[in-house]
Amino acid sequence: MSEARRALEAYLSGVREGVLETLKGLLPTGRRAYRPLYELMLDYPMRDAKALRPGLCIAVCRALGGRLEDALPTATALELYHNAFLIHDDIEDGSLLRRGRPTLHLLHGAPVAVNVGDAMLALSLQPLLDNTERLGLGPALRILQVVSRMARESAEGQAVELDWIRHDTWDLEDRDYLRMVYQKTCWYTFIAPSLLGSLAAGASEAQRWTLTRFAVLLGMAFQIQDDVLNLASEEAVYGKEANGDLWEGKRTLILLHALRHAEPSERARAKDLLRLPRASKTEEGVSYLRALVDRRDSLGHARAVATRRAERARRTLESARGWLKPSVHQGFLTALVDYVMDRTR
Amino acid sequence: MSEARRALEAYLSGVREGVLETLKGLLPTGRRAYRPLYELMLDYPMRDAKALRPGLCIAVCRALGGRLEDALPTATALELYHNAFLIHDDIEDGSLLRRGRPTLHLLHGAPVAVNVGDAMLALSLQPLLDNTERLGLGPALRILQVVSRMARESAEGQAVELDWIRHDTWDLEDRDYLRMVYQKTCWYTFIAPSLLGSLAAGASEAQRWTLTRFAVLLGMAFQIQDDVLNLASEEAVYGKEANGDLWEGKRTLILLHALRHAEPSERARAKDLLRLPRASKTEEGVSYLRALVDRRDSLGHARAVATRRAERARRTLESARGWLKPSVHQGFLTALVDYVMDRTR
Repeated sequence: MSEARRALEAYLSGVREGVLETLKGLLPTGRRAYRPLYELMLDYPMRDAKALRPGLCIAVCRALGGRLEDALPTATALELYHNAFLIHDDIEDGSLLRRGRPTLHLLHGAPVAVNVGDAMLALSLQPLLDNTERLGLGPALRILQVVSRMARESAEGQAVELDWIRHDTWDLEDRDYLRMVYQKTCWYTFIAPSLLGSLAAGASEAQRWTLTRFAVLLGMAFQIQDDVLNLASEEAVYGKEANGDLWEGKRTLILLHALRHAEPSERARAKDLLRLPRASKTEEGVSYLRALVDRRDSLGHARAVATRRAERARRTLESARGWLKPSVHQGFLTALVDYVMDRTR
Repeated sequence: MSEARRALEAYLSGVREGVLETLKGLLPTGRRAYRPLYELMLDYPMRDAKALRPGLCIAVCRALGGRLEDALPTATALELYHNAFLIHDDIEDGSLLRRGRPTLHLLHGAPVAVNVGDAMLALSLQPLLDNTERLGLGPALRILQVVSRMARESAEGQAVELDWIRHDTWDLEDRDYLRMVYQKTCWYTFIAPSLLGSLAAGASEAQRWTLTRFAVLLGMAFQIQDDVLNLASEEAVYGKEANGDLWEGKRTLILLHALRHAEPSERARAKDLLRLPRASKTEEGVSYLRALVDRRDSLGHARAVATRRAERARRTLESARGWLKPSVHQGFLTALVDYVMDRTR
């Protein structure tokens, strides 16, 4: 592992510790608090999470000269929101594994899992309201506005993707996929953390714009690379099942590319396989899809698209050298670009 | 129908109109807005809803001398939150009917329904943030604090109830049930609307306390009466399936009373029937439970408990006559007590 990568992992692990501590401090502890609920709310966050969203939020804030305490409550709200979204997303996708362990709805049933997600969404408001004392009313409200938009964009992106599945939509361009990803993933994984870190640090509008551009580009690269990893990784390393996206029939840049470049007969057979519900798919069918992807080098196509975005993200960050002071935080942001492209899980 | 009741229905119908208009105004309309999601978000609110929560919020605000515009955004947020909670609750309970039509997850599948609920929770933040312009930063933030607590209490109450079901818990006192209802129902159906209406009107702390006491008492009466109606009503009038709570094995004051007063052999048989999953229950089994409830006059017991709370709510409201000016709004609050006890759906 390179030194830069080790530093990045150390940075994230420090962030994760601070976030988990803050999160535990948010949980009601009184005699009447219903502990079983609060234990389940800690399950996903305590698993081997990357803390990417809080890490980005905190690094942006501090690289702009803000303090850790300015961003930590907001970063914790982001981690709560992310994990709530994962719980609901796992139910919606019928996923089996999350971070190497069974999903929450497999462990406790969908009713409990839906409610734990709701409880986490509810709790995520608290640190954002606490921001008023630390940051003042104006910045605290702007932060709430961004979180409100973030939640709206994610739900809309999720709706688009679910409707593709329900209506068996496969005639999609790359730009349809990219727009869905912008809403479903980029917004809450990159744009919101970066914008929230900027607001916590009191950044100027021009600074916020530059950092948002960086976040959009990096977020796209991240999701495309995530799709690549889903198909390219070994099960044990990635923590999800092998070829999971093919089992789920997930629209990705990879699969859209393979379908677009397939012979008509291949395409017809692939669509027939893809429209089967997960439980009716077979190893053989998934292997056929996988072979099609490999034959068209669709992973190579996706990697190339991701790399171009990551390079533009890097140049955007370099253009901010005038006001992003050299520091461990600025170093983290630079290392993040490599991380997004080089990670194995 | 009595004149007071007609006036109450007219009041609620006016509120409902204002809330639906406000709600539609919140939905994104741009070229890029994903309309299918926004149409589903309107489904439950457009059904024959009572608009009880926004009605209470607006009536409290106006009875205290506030204006309609002060409370309308918050009332709309409450209606959004309520309908989001209903969508998720219907999934969690496996309910089939809501307001006389199939539940959202039956119509569109659980994945879409989970996400529509999340989208409504996300959108409910918007009018609360808009409050800052109308009410000022201080009151807007206090309103957000109450909404945050409301969401937390609801999720906690829901968790308690779900765990009773999962762990087959039947050894419950009335007070266990009442505490769960306080969290799951009273908070967001009565306490929060009343407190939010008070905050929107700029009420004093003493006034808020009195109205909260009124809300707690009326909320308890409402939920117990709701459980009574579930068993006492005809399917067509009530809009849910007959004996639905017995099919669902829902812990209610009624069922707990029947179990407590049953012979040991009856109790054992009843518990065996209740612990069957819904799909394994039979008409015969549910009829046995229903006969047990009737034999012990458990509906009578529940009605008596509800009546006592409603009477205390009425007296609490009368104690506020010094500062709740006589008006159609104060009249609505009085009529609400009768409504809670006399309604048939």
